[in-house]
Amino acid sequence: MNQRANDPIILKIHNDDNVAIVANDGGLPSGTVIKPGLVLQDGVPQGHKFTLVPVAQGEAVVRYGVAIGYATENLTTGCWVKDSLMSMPSPPELERLPSGGRCRGIPAPLSGYTFEGYRNTDGSVGTRNILAISTTVQCVAGVVEHALSRIRSELLPLYPHVDDVVAIEHTYGCGVAIDAPGADIPIRTLRNIVLNPNFGGEVLLISLGCEKLQPDRLLPAGAIPVASDSRVVLQDDCHIGFEAMIEHILLLAREKLERLNRRRRVTCPASDLVVGVQCGGSDAFSGITANPAVGYVSDLIVRSGGTVMFSEVTEVRDGIAQLLARAATPEVAQALRHEMAWYDTYLQRGGVDRSANTTPGNKKGGLNNIVEKAMGSIVKSGVSDIVGVVSPGEKVTVRGLNYTATPASDFICGTLQMAAGMNIHVFTTGRGTPYGLAAVPVVKVATRSDLARRWHDLMDVNAGTIATGEKTVEEVGWEMFHFLLDVASGRRKTWAEHWKIHNALALFNPAPVT
Amino acid sequence: MNQRANDPIILKIHNDDNVAIVANDGGLPSGTVIKPGLVLQDGVPQGHKFTLVPVAQGEAVVRYGVAIGYATENLTTGCWVKDSLMSMPSPPELERLPSGGRCRGIPAPLSGYTFEGYRNTDGSVGTRNILAISTTVQCVAGVVEHALSRIRSELLPLYPHVDDVVAIEHTYGCGVAIDAPGADIPIRTLRNIVLNPNFGGEVLLISLGCEKLQPDRLLPAGAIPVASDSRVVLQDDCHIGFEAMIEHILLLAREKLERLNRRRRVTCPASDLVVGVQCGGSDAFSGITANPAVGYVSDLIVRSGGTVMFSEVTEVRDGIAQLLARAATPEVAQALRHEMAWYDTYLQRGGVDRSANTTPGNKKGGLNNIVEKAMGSIVKSGVSDIVGVVSPGEKVTVRGLNYTATPASDFICGTLQMAAGMNIHVFTTGRGTPYGLAAVPVVKVATRSDLARRWHDLMDVNAGTIATGEKTVEEVGWEMFHFLLDVASGRRKTWAEHWKIHNALALFNPAPVT
Ligand SMILES: [Ca+2]
Ligand SMILES: [Ca+2]
Ligand SMILES: [Ca+2]
Ligand SMILES: [Ca+2]
Ligand SMILES: [Ca+2]
Repeated sequence: MNQRANDPIILKIHNDDNVAIVANDGGLPSGTVIKPGLVLQDGVPQGHKFTLVPVAQGEAVVRYGVAIGYATENLTTGCWVKDSLMSMPSPPELERLPSGGRCRGIPAPLSGYTFEGYRNTDGSVGTRNILAISTTVQCVAGVVEHALSRIRSELLPLYPHVDDVVAIEHTYGCGVAIDAPGADIPIRTLRNIVLNPNFGGEVLLISLGCEKLQPDRLLPAGAIPVASDSRVVLQDDCHIGFEAMIEHILLLAREKLERLNRRRRVTCPASDLVVGVQCGGSDAFSGITANPAVGYVSDLIVRSGGTVMFSEVTEVRDGIAQLLARAATPEVAQALRHEMAWYDTYLQRGGVDRSANTTPGNKKGGLNNIVEKAMGSIVKSGVSDIVGVVSPGEKVTVRGLNYTATPASDFICGTLQMAAGMNIHVFTTGRGTPYGLAAVPVVKVATRSDLARRWHDLMDVNAGTIATGEKTVEEVGWEMFHFLLDVASGRRKTWAEHWKIHNALALFNPAPVT
Repeated sequence: MNQRANDPIILKIHNDDNVAIVANDGGLPSGTVIKPGLVLQDGVPQGHKFTLVPVAQGEAVVRYGVAIGYATENLTTGCWVKDSLMSMPSPPELERLPSGGRCRGIPAPLSGYTFEGYRNTDGSVGTRNILAISTTVQCVAGVVEHALSRIRSELLPLYPHVDDVVAIEHTYGCGVAIDAPGADIPIRTLRNIVLNPNFGGEVLLISLGCEKLQPDRLLPAGAIPVASDSRVVLQDDCHIGFEAMIEHILLLAREKLERLNRRRRVTCPASDLVVGVQCGGSDAFSGITANPAVGYVSDLIVRSGGTVMFSEVTEVRDGIAQLLARAATPEVAQALRHEMAWYDTYLQRGGVDRSANTTPGNKKGGLNNIVEKAMGSIVKSGVSDIVGVVSPGEKVTVRGLNYTATPASDFICGTLQMAAGMNIHVFTTGRGTPYGLAAVPVVKVATRSDLARRWHDLMDVNAGTIATGEKTVEEVGWEMFHFLLDVASGRRKTWAEHWKIHNALALFNPAPVT
């Protein structure tokens, strides 16, 4: 359907919805006739909701077929449903919901799709060939950064088959209550990040010496599957002066680069993709354009035998009933309940609840509360059964759709998905963010054409065409699937890779610092 | 006193002590005759304690004149007091201790010492002239790093009176429970860092647009004393493409650099120094050599009318009785109690207590527990009265000795002392750490000559000569004082500045992430 520029474009998602959103750039003015008998009583900004029928005080405001809130006064038809006109429902009780295990039929398998990747000895496949310099503690960061800059300028040009060298820096490792409840999360996160498929099983670990997180605690020698393991401890007596530390790191880096440089891409089935999906800077279009398209891609990857992980506890908490219904086994359902309950307690201990998630940008973009945001966020997971649940910092072990429990924070979620083993990241955004990771390609999907136009060299995929009717969810989904295979193969770079921009890793540490 | 290489060097600190430590490199073997009637029953490693007299089971092990623990079995004279032979006392009850306000006599004022600094319009004085690029949220970090590298290479050479350009990056700003109890700490920390004297009152703030920590919440317009305030919001419609964002930042950076470049150093009294002291990678020598020398410097600065801040709650908690006795007023005493109690609760909520502080390196270095570590840590504050207490992230407002409550984590403590307004940092270390800050010079003091020798181009001051009797605490203290004045004046650089190595800023966020 093509529309004239001034025609109202309104989007209703579910048959039961009593609201719709305005898709037009700049919104629609008061008095706009949507159809006979449906006239806007207020100006409605782009992405915001208006009533399709009268909604009485106390009655549910329904979007995605669920109650996203309750009217705080009587609303006539065509009202802008502002934040102040809607109260928020309580979170669903975890125990009363029907448990999983319903067989919903295996989706049609998909075959014949491949990408060119770096196969590792543990069976995982890298989409990039990167030397990681891991660290036990922030103390060593200054030395590591200095070494990194010399490796980049002096060594990397000698090893053309190595894509990059990246430091795994963080503020954990010392000055923390390392045996407190929850401290296992940041420790296993750092351990599993080293095992990310894009690092080829080569471990180069820099330690200070006196830190709480000792190298053998981070990476128990022999207990983890690596191709080769080398460590530099700055406090070792062998280091006389700063440059001795740097030379030691460079020496070991050279060995690792030799090994990595011998690797070549080989043709791998799409089932070797491990895709982490998340959203950030969401707006009301996220749940209509980009996230459904990503959901379609998720299903394509699962149908290909690949792995997809979705996350962000506070953004699925209000949709837990849907997730439980999709749990492949009762164990998966129970694990989902456990992760929700754990996070409820974590937030409660800090004096807040899941409603602390929403941002000024979300509200400006038309998402009134966390329930509405959650409904649009979950769509990224497609419709496949959930076959695995992974706690923060742990690795995914089963192929198919996994729920990897993480905070919604873009940086913490990305870091935890890296630890879970993702080799490509899909990130949807409505307000716009230049998000990137140093070691895993991040494909950014815009929810609106206006954003894709303005940020033409930061957004990789435009899903805004779905809102205007130019393309279907399926069309954008297939395009994105092919784009992912190209990026995974190194045939194409993401914009974040092109500009070499990336964000910091951010650990999830629910334990105190000391 | 000069000793022959093989002569035992043993250090007893307080008259009441029933233990002393071995200072010899490599420790002393079993059978060593310390003096007639005092023979080592065990080999004792360097920095570790042995009994000077028999200590019966349940009796106090006394060091610094206080009970650092209780013997878990009968110890004969000359026993190595290993970790397993000593249990830890409970923390002092905060309410029962005598409150402050005792007038202990004003120490002799010191005058005539000056340094060359950059005087700011708010009266503070910078020791460096740095352009800070502040950020509301981690989302913008990739763009800011790209801009930073262009500013460094293209602009900075044109402004020879500007020392550097530094990004204030952090993982706060979104994906956090921004209204939770305790969330005011990271927010005011970021606000006050921007006001650090080394940034000359010039604010260049980069925001994404949709983040929780909005620019006006971080820096309420007009409510903070700045010379000039400029902001770039990446999501603003004016930015068409990545390079438009970069050009916008460069344009505003150029204006700031013009202003900063017109500044010149002027002669300032030592009373304009604001010195943050902390320790990291401590050993048993910390409390005997480096920390007492820093304590002497602290007193020199306070006597000069300057400001000293000491911190690290878990490392003073067991010495709170001493601090309360030194509180200049009952209000200061009450504020000290409040900060201790707040941290007790914070740790307890996380399932730990102040004993979570000590590290493997501390124990290896001879510090058996947090009580012993605390006694050696507090010495850094000298003997002056405590005139002010500052909560995490707040600014120091009174000259003299201040207790700025922070975690002991080197990076969090340094970040909070920057927010509190320090213009020079003194850092003591026994095990050795290459710690540095990008925007404030860090003078590193070694507790042992062996470390100073091996890390000759990382340690700025060697206090190890105190243990061997080559120099007195006063001699090292005066040398350090003059070194600080030289570094503050830009006449000398610290080793960390020489190598351009620094650590990340790390915010203290006791609230949950979402
Ligand atoms: Ca999200
Ligand atoms: Ca997110
Ligand atoms: Ca310390
Ligand atoms: Ca410290
Ligand atoms: Ca420095």
